Amino acid sequence: MTYKTIPNIVVGRLPLYLRTLQRMQQEGRQVTSSQELGERLGISAAQIRKDLSQFGEFGKQGTGYGIEYLTSQLQKILRVDRVWDVLVVGAGDVGHALARYPGFKNRGFRVVMVFDRDPEKIGQRIGEFDIQDIASLVPTAKEAKIRIAMLAVPAMEAQEVTNKLIEAGITEILNYAPININVPPGIHVEYNDPVVQLQKMSYHLD
Amino acid sequence: MTYKTIPNIVVGRLPLYLRTLQRMQQEGRQVTSSQELGERLGISAAQIRKDLSQFGEFGKQGTGYGIEYLTSQLQKILRVDRVWDVLVVGAGDVGHALARYPGFKNRGFRVVMVFDRDPEKIGQRIGEFDIQDIASLVPTAKEAKIRIAMLAVPAMEAQEVTNKLIEAGITEILNYAPININVPPGIHVEYNDPVVQLQKMSYHLD
Repeated sequence: MTYKTIPNIVVGRLPLYLRTLQRMQQEGRQVTSSQELGERLGISAAQIRKDLSQFGEFGKQGTGYGIEYLTSQLQKILRVDRVWDVLVVGAGDVGHALARYPGFKNRGFRVVMVFDRDPEKIGQRIGEFDIQDIASLVPTAKEAKIRIAMLAVPAMEAQEVTNKLIEAGITEILNYAPININVPPGIHVEYNDPVVQLQKMSYHLD
Repeated sequence: MTYKTIPNIVVGRLPLYLRTLQRMQQEGRQVTSSQELGERLGISAAQIRKDLSQFGEFGKQGTGYGIEYLTSQLQKILRVDRVWDVLVVGAGDVGHALARYPGFKNRGFRVVMVFDRDPEKIGQRIGEFDIQDIASLVPTAKEAKIRIAMLAVPAMEAQEVTNKLIEAGITEILNYAPININVPPGIHVEYNDPVVQLQKMSYHLD
């Protein structure tokens, strides 16, 4: 089953629906509605129904959505009905926070290795990991068949490390370096830069 | 000068243009074009010209954009021609990384205080800051007239802390807690959840 024709903007909302449904499950809830999801998310109920309808029939008219069922369906659609191994490059403060981040649990991902190029850091521990030499990244990540990387190196090193990641078979990169990276077709990049987010908001300040 | 009618999606691209221009400045460059910006950012040159034209005339036909001039204009538009004081709530790994993040420098923001509710953490240092008791957040942030907060507390505490932030006069919240928060009109929230970003990418995996 592929849904390649679904717009990115729709796919981008599914993780928010899933996150909210998982929160409702934790609250012991069993049934919800597009209205309730919409209120929690600040998205219109009509938008939510339209988004979900692109993937199938998940609710019954008048009875709403079964939370457990819709959760499991969204997990399948987003391919997080399994756990993906993720590597981190860069063992600074950001890499540290990512390597130890408790929020990956039950959401489809786990960090399994951390790399850095600094001889002072290589061999030290972060959480459960020994920091590995970035020189071993390509063979190690290939061997482990890892597809997803989080990039937390300085901006000036980001492109060089990106090239290594691609050589290693990584196809999905979450980039914390505050710079755009160039990747060939078929490689997906998401950017995480708090300053970009803060500037979107400071625009409103006077 | 206000630009309140500009769509959010356009405003959201301006920080990327600014980031790229500042990078070019560091590289010693003086002039660029919408073509070059577009190539670096994976955005079409036409889109960039259209976005920028909503705010004024920044380039001359055939000679491109003066990098220093366009940088300073974007800084004014995004209100980062000054430095905004920012507070952090939550002194865990994420709060730690934010309090010490070097990437705010020259981009319009600086962290000036960090709060936590854990008595074991209060009084300890993070970078240049003593962690303060969250009980003092409202008067302290009010007194300092802070408008921007980064929220790095557990999901279960996020709404309660948000309410305090609003009471303190905060109007812009960058939320790292993996949960949606409810805010009254006039308060802006941006969400930073790496799992949401990873799930957008895992959708493409098989």
